[in-house]
Amino acid sequence: MRPETRRRVLDAVETLGFRPNQHAQSLHSGRSWTVGLMTTDGIGRFSTPVLLGAEDALGAGKISVLLCDTRGDSIREQHHLRNLMDRRVDGIIVTGRRTDPRPPLTGITGLESVPVVYALSPSTDPGDMSVVTDDKGGAGLAAEHLLATGRTRIAHITGPEHHAAARDRARHAVEHLEQAGLALSTGRVHFGEWSEAWGRRAADAVLRTAPDTDAVFCGNDQIARGVTDALRERGIGAPGDIAVVGYDNWDTMALASRPPLTTIDMNLAEIGRIAALRLLEAIDAGEATPGVRTVPCRLVVREST
Amino acid sequence: MRPETRRRVLDAVETLGFRPNQHAQSLHSGRSWTVGLMTTDGIGRFSTPVLLGAEDALGAGKISVLLCDTRGDSIREQHHLRNLMDRRVDGIIVTGRRTDPRPPLTGITGLESVPVVYALSPSTDPGDMSVVTDDKGGAGLAAEHLLATGRTRIAHITGPEHHAAARDRARHAVEHLEQAGLALSTGRVHFGEWSEAWGRRAADAVLRTAPDTDAVFCGNDQIARGVTDALRERGIGAPGDIAVVGYDNWDTMALASRPPLTTIDMNLAEIGRIAALRLLEAIDAGEATPGVRTVPCRLVVREST
Repeated sequence: MRPETRRRVLDAVETLGFRPNQHAQSLHSGRSWTVGLMTTDGIGRFSTPVLLGAEDALGAGKISVLLCDTRGDSIREQHHLRNLMDRRVDGIIVTGRRTDPRPPLTGITGLESVPVVYALSPSTDPGDMSVVTDDKGGAGLAAEHLLATGRTRIAHITGPEHHAAARDRARHAVEHLEQAGLALSTGRVHFGEWSEAWGRRAADAVLRTAPDTDAVFCGNDQIARGVTDALRERGIGAPGDIAVVGYDNWDTMALASRPPLTTIDMNLAEIGRIAALRLLEAIDAGEATPGVRTVPCRLVVREST
Repeated sequence: MRPETRRRVLDAVETLGFRPNQHAQSLHSGRSWTVGLMTTDGIGRFSTPVLLGAEDALGAGKISVLLCDTRGDSIREQHHLRNLMDRRVDGIIVTGRRTDPRPPLTGITGLESVPVVYALSPSTDPGDMSVVTDDKGGAGLAAEHLLATGRTRIAHITGPEHHAAARDRARHAVEHLEQAGLALSTGRVHFGEWSEAWGRRAADAVLRTAPDTDAVFCGNDQIARGVTDALRERGIGAPGDIAVVGYDNWDTMALASRPPLTTIDMNLAEIGRIAALRLLEAIDAGEATPGVRTVPCRLVVREST
């Protein structure tokens, strides 16, 4: 094109405020510059930071995020999946509240050519790309911190045994204590619910059965908050008599707790960000690099220890 | 087309697993069947139910939702807005955490031809489409409920005075009591923070300055939870001596509170749903019906009253 022609075209673009039509570009390039973000259980406390981390990594470029909420309903999942395929998404991120593995997306033609990354809830297929939290490391950080501050009679109160998060954190905490030559002060893990009320009830049980307990490691912050409430109401000092560690670093719970909670932060936004980056790599390379990537936790120390 | 030809095309579609390309359809129809969903402050406790309500109303059809999180940053807002325009979205829903009015979207060519609905955070321009919560009705429900259960010495503890939600609820609660011939038991509204710690401190101030108070209406559930904690720790019965009403129906707070909170539910998912329906109407009609639509609250009665 002659420079004058080029100049006139650019002037016309300017005058008309022309913006290229993304649909025409997508037809031309075969790429839609969109990614599907599927949550399987609404948008909750756990999936929100994952979503935001992913949106942040993707949205900084020209990639847009199509939000799909399946609410754990397989008919909705198929509906959204069909829609995403019709829109020729470049890739899909799947996330959910639970850390239990979930079956891979399936049941729709063409899916095999679209990269999929599972964030927080890994795929049951080890050949898929998953990004998960490090429950072993998290439980280790909590146990290590309690041991380092001189605690030796440690109890563990957590959620339902059928949740992987409860089972895994408990197992790794027990293993970590055993490596230090210790057993749980109560001789067993207290499985129950992810609630403050369970934390209060279980704290009472611990005080009754092992009154010399000097620390409680809890499977989430709600349980830990219940434990601190029970201790305070029975005149037992925290951390003076009993130190308390939570899990999740959910600010509403951890900061409102009296005392504020030392807790484990899973770096959920980082899980979302890494899921997005792995997806972008797979899109650019034209092939997936299978396997599970684990994101380390960090210890947040506050007044409860 | 002859029936045999049609039959052969459909057979080929079936055999090949063909799905229409949405981008080609969009170029043809001039519609993208996508809607932008912009949140101005991350995805928090308030915007999440609004988002889900909107996604539910839109996603049931063939409309997809492009998620844009501006994090209150005007550069990010312009970036997302430009991207949404390039993608020829059929409309935009804007939502945020605060009920304070916000300036309308602006600064980009072509925006005037795209319908925009503001959900929860209304536009400052009354000519725009906004869907808001009914703070007057909500405060009225709380006051009415306390009056109906025989309370006459009512205090009000709420968030910062520079938040519209705190100011509006306080003003309407005071007006409602005045209509019943009553004034606030403490003679004034206790403005402070949206936190449990503020609820506890303010409850102490109320007990000191107006010990015959028989009810506290709180601007949110965190404050109300702080109030119930302070009352219990001072040996004052709730609701026996003092009834407590919260605001938000945030289940984590309202149910974990001792006693569980009577509270006002803003029906946030309904705000999102109605915003989506107004947007669909405007898209179909080719023109917006300006004005503010108010969504009623509902009273949720639990053990604190």
